[in-house]
Amino acid sequence: MLKCWGIHTKKSVAALLATMMLTVSGGTAMAVEKDTTIKNVIILIPDGMANDATALARWYKGSSLTLDSMASGMVRTHSADAPIADSAPAGTAFATGHKSHTGYVGVLPDEATMPGQQPIAAGDAKKPVASILEASKLAGKSTGIIATSEIMHATPADFTAHYPDRKNYDALSMQQAYNGVDVVLGGGGKFLEPAGRKDGQDLIAQIKDQGYDFVTTPEGLKNSTSSKLWGSFSPEALAYDLDRDASKEPSLAEMTTKAIDVLSKNDKGFFLMVEGSKVDWAAHANDPTGIISDVLSFDDAVKVALDYAKQNQNTVVVAVTDHGNGGLTIGSSDTTSNYDKTPLASFIDPLKKAKLTGEGLESKLNADRSNIKEVLSTYFGITDLSDEEVKTIKDAKEGSMNYAVGPIISKRANIGWTTGGHTGGDVVLYTYAPNGDRPSGVIDNTDVNKYMTRVLGLDLDTVSKQLFVPAKAAFEAKGAKFTADTKVITVTKGSNKLELPVYKNIATLNGKNSTLNGVVVFNGVDYFVPQQAIDLIQ
Amino acid sequence: MLKCWGIHTKKSVAALLATMMLTVSGGTAMAVEKDTTIKNVIILIPDGMANDATALARWYKGSSLTLDSMASGMVRTHSADAPIADSAPAGTAFATGHKSHTGYVGVLPDEATMPGQQPIAAGDAKKPVASILEASKLAGKSTGIIATSEIMHATPADFTAHYPDRKNYDALSMQQAYNGVDVVLGGGGKFLEPAGRKDGQDLIAQIKDQGYDFVTTPEGLKNSTSSKLWGSFSPEALAYDLDRDASKEPSLAEMTTKAIDVLSKNDKGFFLMVEGSKVDWAAHANDPTGIISDVLSFDDAVKVALDYAKQNQNTVVVAVTDHGNGGLTIGSSDTTSNYDKTPLASFIDPLKKAKLTGEGLESKLNADRSNIKEVLSTYFGITDLSDEEVKTIKDAKEGSMNYAVGPIISKRANIGWTTGGHTGGDVVLYTYAPNGDRPSGVIDNTDVNKYMTRVLGLDLDTVSKQLFVPAKAAFEAKGAKFTADTKVITVTKGSNKLELPVYKNIATLNGKNSTLNGVVVFNGVDYFVPQQAIDLIQ
Ligand SMILES: [Zn+2]
Ligand SMILES: [Zn+2]
Repeated sequence: MLKCWGIHTKKSVAALLATMMLTVSGGTAMAVEKDTTIKNVIILIPDGMANDATALARWYKGSSLTLDSMASGMVRTHSADAPIADSAPAGTAFATGHKSHTGYVGVLPDEATMPGQQPIAAGDAKKPVASILEASKLAGKSTGIIATSEIMHATPADFTAHYPDRKNYDALSMQQAYNGVDVVLGGGGKFLEPAGRKDGQDLIAQIKDQGYDFVTTPEGLKNSTSSKLWGSFSPEALAYDLDRDASKEPSLAEMTTKAIDVLSKNDKGFFLMVEGSKVDWAAHANDPTGIISDVLSFDDAVKVALDYAKQNQNTVVVAVTDHGNGGLTIGSSDTTSNYDKTPLASFIDPLKKAKLTGEGLESKLNADRSNIKEVLSTYFGITDLSDEEVKTIKDAKEGSMNYAVGPIISKRANIGWTTGGHTGGDVVLYTYAPNGDRPSGVIDNTDVNKYMTRVLGLDLDTVSKQLFVPAKAAFEAKGAKFTADTKVITVTKGSNKLELPVYKNIATLNGKNSTLNGVVVFNGVDYFVPQQAIDLIQ
Repeated sequence: MLKCWGIHTKKSVAALLATMMLTVSGGTAMAVEKDTTIKNVIILIPDGMANDATALARWYKGSSLTLDSMASGMVRTHSADAPIADSAPAGTAFATGHKSHTGYVGVLPDEATMPGQQPIAAGDAKKPVASILEASKLAGKSTGIIATSEIMHATPADFTAHYPDRKNYDALSMQQAYNGVDVVLGGGGKFLEPAGRKDGQDLIAQIKDQGYDFVTTPEGLKNSTSSKLWGSFSPEALAYDLDRDASKEPSLAEMTTKAIDVLSKNDKGFFLMVEGSKVDWAAHANDPTGIISDVLSFDDAVKVALDYAKQNQNTVVVAVTDHGNGGLTIGSSDTTSNYDKTPLASFIDPLKKAKLTGEGLESKLNADRSNIKEVLSTYFGITDLSDEEVKTIKDAKEGSMNYAVGPIISKRANIGWTTGGHTGGDVVLYTYAPNGDRPSGVIDNTDVNKYMTRVLGLDLDTVSKQLFVPAKAAFEAKGAKFTADTKVITVTKGSNKLELPVYKNIATLNGKNSTLNGVVVFNGVDYFVPQQAIDLIQ
């Protein structure tokens, strides 16, 4: 039987021809493809990376990026209702294949007003939709998420949780803890503790109860032998790589290495999402040092993934940012008339002098910020600060020092910026597939999801129907009584009482617990539960 | 015999399998590829196109660009000595496979100081190197160049001429007229006339003497039946497409259609370069209307090329800008805090209201520019001009109105810019190949040349040696006497006298003319002639 498949490289055709079984009958050739099913997908997301950031990081590094070999097309990033996307809907598109609204995590939008969008059916607004991570889990694969931000930040949440407000860390982190993810690595420990939560729960204790090895140091990460691993290395975000204390926080590459070690033990394969979260934050601050720092550390993580995939030959690697940010360019208003005569050193040397990002610099300033000139000289190599620049640094709000020094370095490095916000252009799609089946052209961000689900043989629509059944109608159709508050759904029928804690994967039927294959979701309006929960009431 | 070839699409594999001849012997499969030699290459260059320009033009158009299906990788654009390239060396990289300096057209640089560059050998500075167009011609193919600028502008000159100063229109246009190019379409008629030239020559008369049908109108273009065609539709650059009078100037798509009609009559194939020149000019002016106008007209030309290639199945199409420019983004400093809630109309409606570019607008203003408010209201839909904006328009220098109104429209359309100059990031590579042999990854601009020459089976190093022999040494090695001024080389040996007019392909031996297979080049220092000229002296 002649199957239809995608083949893109010399190597793959040679492999195909070498492995093809040929039968000649009546002059007709029949070819049967050797099974090259992809078992694993790793998607790496350098959040908010402007296109020029890769060239800048490459000049800074002095050699090619791992990403360079992987460019294969471009991706459109708009949300359901705006040409410039927030991270929540942009990541939701990668995770679920659906565009959504600002702040919406893993749920459909209320309406899809951008040109070419399918209308949202009545009643589907804010409805949770399955992520590729959830579908992978249901297919028996292991799953993981990694971020350098707090782990309940928009992008990692998009793959593991559902709520139409990215700021609702309680709802998002609770789902993350109960969604059966095997490896969770990043920051945000504060939001797992009672004091950091509105619900006052001790989520760390619950995470441990779920069987996770909960580690908080690079050493702990390295030494863990658990198949369920939660690494939480900072109260909020991890440091920029340039500022990072390697004894306290692992690098993105180290986290990626460990995650692959753990997840790859599953014969059925795995899905892993890796976010270089703070590329975006540096872009908002127009801080080129932060961008270079975290693009390069991101690229190191890509190398870990790519090396594994090349050796393993069952793994597809995708790297793609969710949207542009900052409009960074090599070249600024200061190079308008002499751009082509400005040497490389004029761009790179001022950046090389920075030993820290603006964020790292902040801790070097004394309480009254009287040592600004010394600190800028020592750590940034800047000895010509204007009075205005000194004042900008002095006046910078706590935690916002990169907003002050980013433009100061940019000016000296001839780096241009258009905005402190996201931008709406296409972004570069980087892919690796052992069989050469890589997307090219300009595709939509939802198509990135469709590509990944296709190679893994997953069907998210079917999984959405399994995991997110509108609970009230389904239980009432069975003649049961449905009541719910924001904490728990209670269903009674005859002598049976079913309790379903919101944002958890636990069903308590007449006092006896069982584990569901997905979490109970309250989207602020309605409740959604796995079909498994519905089936508990007969 | 199992050949090695590149196959990238489902379609191509299906085609391959369908056309493969199979022999089974002792369990070993042998496949012989059907001959799919590429005969034609069309490269289209939207000069100075920022990455976000395609997304902006797409939203403006309301549907996909032809380019969208063709994205396959990224291209590095730096010159031999700077991270941000001038058009002359950037186009020289595409044309010749060699990086060069600002202003250098079709010649090697004096030195290559950027990281990773091969040093320039002693004596090779400013040496002319063959273009893919010249090599195609020597291989018996037809050749053509099209531009919306004057045709002797940097990019079209890069493919057809050699001189280390792009401003030397006399030297460049003379070579263009005598380099055996079959189709030349664009602007710059003024620089062919005695009054527009320092050398005072009537190049139009000489072009006609060379056998060209010299046309100056769309009607003349359409009706020409000549196999040598020179269309010159404006004294300098053609109008932006939005401002264009279709009775006076053809569109880029119309020129491309006609060029393909003429060139494709050659059984040995053709090479065609098409430049959307003024995307770059609009970017320098930070004028989004000019960019949208000419990106869309460029995309129409891409469609002509792609449609031909898809039907023809012997043609590779490459579209790639030579460098970024302006740093245009969808999003500006005005959207820093509300980017994700800014609707599409806020970006596009102000642009849609513009019926002309800033250049087109200029002719609508009266002599004392007292009608600025009326004109801006009528042609740009802008009714809220500030006093400062009125003053900016009033003070704009003649021929620079798009520098005045570009930022005024950009402000209203939330379009950001970083610079009035070129930028140094990677640019998108768009390709089509009937056999799926398309480059991916981040490649160098010189690799774009190497890709095109490879698919055509050309060897530019060999052609450079054939076409650009250092004349003095070569003739003196034959015992001849060599003298030269900037107009003519004179070689005498015994009773033989050979005259070689500079920048022409003519050899006059003892008063008898013959045609050389390339032009005589004076690069300001030395003289280079085709080996054919050397061979005339025995
Ligand atoms: Zn983002
Ligand atoms: Zn250019």
